[in-house]
Amino acid sequence: MTRPPLSPTERSTIQRGKQRAATERADLDEVLDAGVICHLGVVINGAPVVLPTCYGWEGDTLYVHGSTGASTLRTAIAGAEVSVAITLLDGIVYARSAFHHSANYRSAVVHGRARLVEDPDEKLHALAVITQQVAPGSWDYTRGPNRKELAATSVLALELTEAAVKIRRGPPVDDEEDVAEDSRWAGVLPVRQVWGEPEPCPLLPPGVAAPSHVTLRGASLGE
Amino acid sequence: MTRPPLSPTERSTIQRGKQRAATERADLDEVLDAGVICHLGVVINGAPVVLPTCYGWEGDTLYVHGSTGASTLRTAIAGAEVSVAITLLDGIVYARSAFHHSANYRSAVVHGRARLVEDPDEKLHALAVITQQVAPGSWDYTRGPNRKELAATSVLALELTEAAVKIRRGPPVDDEEDVAEDSRWAGVLPVRQVWGEPEPCPLLPPGVAAPSHVTLRGASLGE
Repeated sequence: MTRPPLSPTERSTIQRGKQRAATERADLDEVLDAGVICHLGVVINGAPVVLPTCYGWEGDTLYVHGSTGASTLRTAIAGAEVSVAITLLDGIVYARSAFHHSANYRSAVVHGRARLVEDPDEKLHALAVITQQVAPGSWDYTRGPNRKELAATSVLALELTEAAVKIRRGPPVDDEEDVAEDSRWAGVLPVRQVWGEPEPCPLLPPGVAAPSHVTLRGASLGE
Repeated sequence: MTRPPLSPTERSTIQRGKQRAATERADLDEVLDAGVICHLGVVINGAPVVLPTCYGWEGDTLYVHGSTGASTLRTAIAGAEVSVAITLLDGIVYARSAFHHSANYRSAVVHGRARLVEDPDEKLHALAVITQQVAPGSWDYTRGPNRKELAATSVLALELTEAAVKIRRGPPVDDEEDVAEDSRWAGVLPVRQVWGEPEPCPLLPPGVAAPSHVTLRGASLGE
């Protein structure tokens, strides 16, 4: 599978905080792999609308899905431009000055025209890809979508060619005078997402154990 | 301080998943309190741009800030419409069917015209409010912004009057036939953000302990 380097256009070229810009395709892949939700931006009646939703990705294509009734998706389906942001918060940067406070994070913002996925095979595959991102292992374990469910779901595809990736890691960057003063603590308070214990559906009969794709996920990223 | 109920317009009235719509101002406050970052959407050259950034809020006003050089902020400053989303992911909902997979979350999407904060007192206060959201306790502990730093920072204010709040909690909602089949586990894998151990800046001299507003934050939301 080809993995072109990121080819930023004017809007995907990072103007602010250039030292945080990542230009390798591998950086984009890392952010896309680690995320669970994205924020989809569309223009409706001339105004921006930002909504959280699930996504999946494979190769050079990002997929988002939603109800066929959702106005954000209907707008995007009309061939309009969209913007999709995936952000991972890794820590709060406590500097010696209020001004230099910051966050450690990894983010990707993808721009482009969304394409409605109409081919039935691609649509089913896209839903498998999204499910794999949100709930790895669930696609093969659960009942697949029937015709009615497929008809109620819209899937949009966005090419991963125009993307801006920003990554901030490490300690605060303070002014020399503030560092020299030595009177205040500075550093990073890391933050991460951890999984809890699986909570069984109350309608489950006794004795149905959680499958390994759920229990191992919790174990892998939890304490 | 008045706390009007949410007064949704057409775009802030939730069309999809109405059962998840929250209409109390207290629900909005809860989401705003719990978030650390938001996603700001603006329209640039007719296309949406979504960017993660920090925010703060007080009463009926949401503040975001950024460099005066950032094009997203410059666009918003021109009096344009913006959309700000704050999303808290609480769990992955594993259903018996792929179609009914979902996420437990709390989200708020605020719409409106951003106002550039020009009054020096309000600007300084807004920066304190944002710092309190991102790094509680830091504003009083650290060196405050000087004139040059204030000039390099733009602050936007957005009224909290037009907001859509969605909350999903609880187990999966499956089709009756899938529940009756009893062959598959279903439930929720909770997820939450936890703080790690503070990582001191390498430039700190020995013996400077992390202040309580950092250590207690880690303790309060960590294990």
